[in-house]
Amino acid sequence: MRAAVFRQGDLFVDELAEPVPGNGLVLVRTLACGICGSDLHARDHARKMEGVSKFVPWRKPLDPTRDFVMGHEFACEVLDYGPGASKRFRIGTHVVSVPWIIRDGAVQGIGFSNDNTGGYAERMLLTENNLLEVPNGLPADHAALTEPLAVGIHAVEKARIAGDEVPLVIGCGPIGLAIIATLRAKNLHPIVAADFSPKRRELALLMGADVVVDPAVSSPYTTWQEYAAYSPEETKRRAPLLGMPRPLMPALIFECVGVPGVINQIFEGAPRNARIIVVGVCMENDLAKPMLGVLKELTVQYVFGFTKDEFASGLRMLAEGEVNAGELVTGKVGLDGISGAFTDLANPERHTKILVEPWR
Amino acid sequence: MRAAVFRQGDLFVDELAEPVPGNGLVLVRTLACGICGSDLHARDHARKMEGVSKFVPWRKPLDPTRDFVMGHEFACEVLDYGPGASKRFRIGTHVVSVPWIIRDGAVQGIGFSNDNTGGYAERMLLTENNLLEVPNGLPADHAALTEPLAVGIHAVEKARIAGDEVPLVIGCGPIGLAIIATLRAKNLHPIVAADFSPKRRELALLMGADVVVDPAVSSPYTTWQEYAAYSPEETKRRAPLLGMPRPLMPALIFECVGVPGVINQIFEGAPRNARIIVVGVCMENDLAKPMLGVLKELTVQYVFGFTKDEFASGLRMLAEGEVNAGELVTGKVGLDGISGAFTDLANPERHTKILVEPWR
Repeated sequence: MRAAVFRQGDLFVDELAEPVPGNGLVLVRTLACGICGSDLHARDHARKMEGVSKFVPWRKPLDPTRDFVMGHEFACEVLDYGPGASKRFRIGTHVVSVPWIIRDGAVQGIGFSNDNTGGYAERMLLTENNLLEVPNGLPADHAALTEPLAVGIHAVEKARIAGDEVPLVIGCGPIGLAIIATLRAKNLHPIVAADFSPKRRELALLMGADVVVDPAVSSPYTTWQEYAAYSPEETKRRAPLLGMPRPLMPALIFECVGVPGVINQIFEGAPRNARIIVVGVCMENDLAKPMLGVLKELTVQYVFGFTKDEFASGLRMLAEGEVNAGELVTGKVGLDGISGAFTDLANPERHTKILVEPWR
Repeated sequence: MRAAVFRQGDLFVDELAEPVPGNGLVLVRTLACGICGSDLHARDHARKMEGVSKFVPWRKPLDPTRDFVMGHEFACEVLDYGPGASKRFRIGTHVVSVPWIIRDGAVQGIGFSNDNTGGYAERMLLTENNLLEVPNGLPADHAALTEPLAVGIHAVEKARIAGDEVPLVIGCGPIGLAIIATLRAKNLHPIVAADFSPKRRELALLMGADVVVDPAVSSPYTTWQEYAAYSPEETKRRAPLLGMPRPLMPALIFECVGVPGVINQIFEGAPRNARIIVVGVCMENDLAKPMLGVLKELTVQYVFGFTKDEFASGLRMLAEGEVNAGELVTGKVGLDGISGAFTDLANPERHTKILVEPWR
């Protein structure tokens, strides 16, 4: 079968051996697979991951010097079952799955693995128990957004919202937008969102942000403070004396950028007692001023991935039309087009999510 | 009156004008005042604070180029009242107070302030409403430990213990020891504590640690894992498949060192989902690998200071003999001896807390 192989730092379309489903596994045809920011990160920083992997012993490290096939945001069609499968879905059913697989009694990743082919390939193997049927009427190219949406759902779940927070979303790429959609579904308003790109701010509003800020024009934190202020009477009640910090509703800041320096910018801008949920995956070393964290009593909560339940919630939100998927998918390419799409994704005005359709 | 003045980067004993209590203020005689690690930090890094202070607008910045008198861990004797005071305590009463003062309707700091003299002086001004009477029988040189104990109490309060956490205290200086004492008072066991110093490990055991680790000999995180492990059956139940992260009881790691690099060491050693409470005040820039935070879903909670209630709890713990104060006070000096004490405190084998007794 054809696949886009990551080999020595670049992508090559190549012919790979046909995958054969083992025990409990399902052979599927990839209908659509999103290109994730972490794929771009991995291309540029795969070697940096090696320095980190010894501290996360439960994850089999990716060896970037050996071939692997990316793609962890996929919607597929059931083609065939391996031995021991219950054949829950008839052949031809459209399915999605969390991007991990159970092989020989062990959990293994899909998409950043030297062993398991991801969605940048015509066909791949999934674990039957992980499959969710795509509800009737939801096109595969929208169902492929389940995974990035689940990342946003997980971030919001981990934030354990009490109900009185005023959220601020820094960065409105696919994950920031997923978080906005999830916050809207949870009815937490006003949602303040910031991005340098006019197109991304437009999408943020479409997904449910109440106010958007261009950080080149004004400070997201100043705008946030306007929306998080108490009434003059309540402010006076909570801080009767001069020299007391200005009381503000609790800040819940989502970091969805993932480049060095952003967390420190948030440290500088954040109000006292802010909770910062870091969803952006920064693969490089990062410098911060812990003193600011101390004086402001900030909390930084790093989140990653999602549970199977959160993944199922993502599919449900898409199926129920709670996310305007059509607006997020800005391009489609075949396997030959992935390399170009990696470049095109650098322009946030033109692209939000590009899908790979390996059958093209 | 005599005071140790911080002037142009060093301490000088000098004669200052006698403080006169204004509205609602009390003139007190300093009986004992602890030397805090942050005093040493401030001597070395006061100028770095300037870069940070613009981001914490509610705190009047300390101008280290102008004179100030340190000392924020004090026990005092009431000498006289200013106008408008209710004269709640008779003259001669021994009192402690949170290290802030209300002047002209504004909250101001004590000890890191160009306006308000701290406890490295013979006399100082306090706000009557902040005073707590030292219970009969608690000597002033033990009551002076109320403040550092309150810092530990605050850190533990902020951690919002659920009851199933296994704590790991990194660094057993006065704050680490205060945290251990507070954890013991909360009955959260086993308490694991780490310090390079044999004397500090001995004190950690005395304060209530169940197990101590010398990081030069073995990893505190490995030891922690032994104590946080589930039974083999429970481990199997929680992680039935290979490749699943090893399930462990929730980690609650207290960072009580406050030098660059420690947070990243904790990122490397911490188990998944650990909560890290940063109590150490690192005044320098610090480098971290956010990717480790992400992959492990760590939470970093910076804490600072305490409330008046937490301060009162500190005094209560001392009065009730829950903290072996006598073991913590390792030296006493007059105003002339502060400079030497700053140097002596570098040796954790000899010193934990040195008290200044300005009347000496």
